[in-house]
Amino acid sequence: MSSRNSDRRGFLKRSAALAGLAAGAIPLSKGKALAGVNPDESILKQGVTPDEPVIEDLAYGGRSRYETSVYRVHAPGALAKVGLRNLTPLHDTIGAITPASLHFLVNRELELPNINPKEHTLIIHGMVDRPLIFTMDELKRLPSVSRVHFLECTGNSGLYHYRQYIMDQKAGRTDQHMIVGVHGRTSSSEWTGVPLSLLLKEAGVQKGAKWMISQGGDTERHTKSMPLAKGLDDAMVAYGQNGEALRREQGYPLRLLAPGFQGVNNVKFLRSIKITDTPYYLQSEISAYTDLKPDGKASWYESQVGPKSLITFPSDPHKLMERGYYQISGLAWCGRGKIARVEVSTDGGQSWKDAVIQTPVFSKAHTRFRFDWNWDGSECLIMSRCTNEFGDIQPTMRELAKLWGEQRTPAISADAMVDLWEHTTMSSYLNNPIQVWKIKQDGSVEDGTYSTFKFYPFYH
Amino acid sequence: MSSRNSDRRGFLKRSAALAGLAAGAIPLSKGKALAGVNPDESILKQGVTPDEPVIEDLAYGGRSRYETSVYRVHAPGALAKVGLRNLTPLHDTIGAITPASLHFLVNRELELPNINPKEHTLIIHGMVDRPLIFTMDELKRLPSVSRVHFLECTGNSGLYHYRQYIMDQKAGRTDQHMIVGVHGRTSSSEWTGVPLSLLLKEAGVQKGAKWMISQGGDTERHTKSMPLAKGLDDAMVAYGQNGEALRREQGYPLRLLAPGFQGVNNVKFLRSIKITDTPYYLQSEISAYTDLKPDGKASWYESQVGPKSLITFPSDPHKLMERGYYQISGLAWCGRGKIARVEVSTDGGQSWKDAVIQTPVFSKAHTRFRFDWNWDGSECLIMSRCTNEFGDIQPTMRELAKLWGEQRTPAISADAMVDLWEHTTMSSYLNNPIQVWKIKQDGSVEDGTYSTFKFYPFYH
Repeated sequence: MSSRNSDRRGFLKRSAALAGLAAGAIPLSKGKALAGVNPDESILKQGVTPDEPVIEDLAYGGRSRYETSVYRVHAPGALAKVGLRNLTPLHDTIGAITPASLHFLVNRELELPNINPKEHTLIIHGMVDRPLIFTMDELKRLPSVSRVHFLECTGNSGLYHYRQYIMDQKAGRTDQHMIVGVHGRTSSSEWTGVPLSLLLKEAGVQKGAKWMISQGGDTERHTKSMPLAKGLDDAMVAYGQNGEALRREQGYPLRLLAPGFQGVNNVKFLRSIKITDTPYYLQSEISAYTDLKPDGKASWYESQVGPKSLITFPSDPHKLMERGYYQISGLAWCGRGKIARVEVSTDGGQSWKDAVIQTPVFSKAHTRFRFDWNWDGSECLIMSRCTNEFGDIQPTMRELAKLWGEQRTPAISADAMVDLWEHTTMSSYLNNPIQVWKIKQDGSVEDGTYSTFKFYPFYH
Repeated sequence: MSSRNSDRRGFLKRSAALAGLAAGAIPLSKGKALAGVNPDESILKQGVTPDEPVIEDLAYGGRSRYETSVYRVHAPGALAKVGLRNLTPLHDTIGAITPASLHFLVNRELELPNINPKEHTLIIHGMVDRPLIFTMDELKRLPSVSRVHFLECTGNSGLYHYRQYIMDQKAGRTDQHMIVGVHGRTSSSEWTGVPLSLLLKEAGVQKGAKWMISQGGDTERHTKSMPLAKGLDDAMVAYGQNGEALRREQGYPLRLLAPGFQGVNNVKFLRSIKITDTPYYLQSEISAYTDLKPDGKASWYESQVGPKSLITFPSDPHKLMERGYYQISGLAWCGRGKIARVEVSTDGGQSWKDAVIQTPVFSKAHTRFRFDWNWDGSECLIMSRCTNEFGDIQPTMRELAKLWGEQRTPAISADAMVDLWEHTTMSSYLNNPIQVWKIKQDGSVEDGTYSTFKFYPFYH
């Protein structure tokens, strides 16, 4: 088709109204002109390669055979030998919902239960007037709600994973991308289930009860203490995800959902909830999944995810092929309320402009933002920061470090980032600082959060 | 576990606050009491049947092996011999999003294209200043939006499908449920793509242009005329569905999305859009997909879906096992704006009460509603009606019949419903009347829309 080879028309002024922007003056890359060709004729020549699908395959459909590049990445490293870690390909996400097939999976063992829902029960006991047991059928008969909420692994975006990413790069593993390996432990779904407050009311919580201990039916019997107040607020026992049953990797047939709380609280394969007056101080909440703070105290039971955002396009797997228009896009989320504002900087944090937020916005859910950008072909740093409806702002790395202290840790100082340690937060578990991508002159994208620390002080 | 056999505690008053209802006085079915058993001990005895999943299977996850009862039903009948019809199991839906694997599929041929996105282009031509051609990569670089919208096949809920359902029942096909066979041609997704208005602005629509002719790349070259005003309003060319690429059954790699317009407008495998001053008066818009009105004129290009709702639980595949609490649940949608109100009647239309609507509500999207109900064990008729934000109310069958006329048609009078014809609408393509389920004394559910016509006049 000769028209395909015609000269690109270049750029065009774009109306502000189209993208909901103020005074739109960004040149827009567009399709090629169709000159000297009969469109009707050329359309008829387009090939079609049909086949007759197997009816059984349509009963529960799969992807096009051409969609092979988007998949959950199996995270490498030592942890992979003792657990399952398959991460969401954030660089390929579009919209705000994560397909269940691509929802991240962090399992601390290599085994996953295959639970028959007909044999599964939920027990509520401890400091309650009426200990109760529910079959799945009984739970599904109770009043249900559906809400869109993100989940994020407690360690997501932490230095541990960045270190692993650096090691992978040194080992020549070009399939490991920073946006997946470091940040890919977050996804967002429409969850359906029964408000936990309803079950607790049925059971009759006794005076003096302040905690709830949830246990899962996996082989390690994953158990977690959580303040009872969260259970009486917006927690739910969820059996549905994105319009169908929970996936097995998400705890089929039942999981706890503690919206806005770190992933480890959202117990999968949920079998029991015990109401108590104290937490259980379990390994997974005392020695693991916590950080020491400057005052020597640990971050026990500080579970709410802070305001956080991340640019997903462009990010490290992408390469800009030419200067011109691009739509920067990303996700913002917060464990407290709705995202109210996302700002983007394309000059290393010197100036910020508002991004367009996809509406309606759900509370404690991934929120897609989009920002029109004209890349002039020079090296630059791009980043986003979000604000929730209460005015909580995503912090800089330096602001976060004030909370957690600026320390060296032996586990991290083993690699090349030693000279950065003194100015970065050592938090492994509450990692919501502003994240940065460096766009290089050749259009490739690499980490800008750590690698540019000394040179671009604005956002640190 | 002996506790499982303990007596059911009966019913309990439920607090209004828990389900967001006004004065809640509905007895709530609940779990069994755990009496005379050590919960900690009994929990430990619960079995787990783990295995080590294959890492490759986790790259793009599937369902639990126990989830085999939920699938798209292959619609039977004459049409199935010349086309593909796989319908959404509405009775099993939860929440408001339809999983892509369960999105309904109506294809007028038995073949489905397998299009390589690298070879696919979209041409915009006709009455434009600058005919354009876009590759998929070029389209994906343009400003994108994501919005949740329903799709509904033009003939959904029509008498044609009800007749087919009756014939299936007579033939002893117990796997064909009315809620699927008659109503299962609607689903809702988060769609991502480029606003068509943006592409049309790039192309420069000429004076006098009033229509757009869209053509797909399937073997039949499905083509549809649509008012240009819709293209300049909220139509988009969509490449994303629920956070990933369009499924092949939905037109991979590109489809037209005309939010709120009947399904036939949403051209799949979209290859070209031609801007014209008149429609093309194609077979699919003149002799098919239209109805004659009382004045002898046909419903050409009347495409906007009216306010419509449907109770999905309980519906005909379900059986209530005992009297007591049930949560009636269903979906409401409209081709114009947001659903503002859903009312439910459980007494054959004599009285109506407001249902709780799942929020936030999207425009032109499935909206889940829920309604607390205490079934007293007697036969009754349940139904829902919705109102959109502009006050448009879902009509009764009789109200709809006034629009379309009360006629007999040979195609329908061949079956047992002959005595109903004079009072029901003959519309095959704009079917949004109030739909009714009859709950029988044994708890089973059957059609109440047509079968009870003579006996329950309230909602007709």
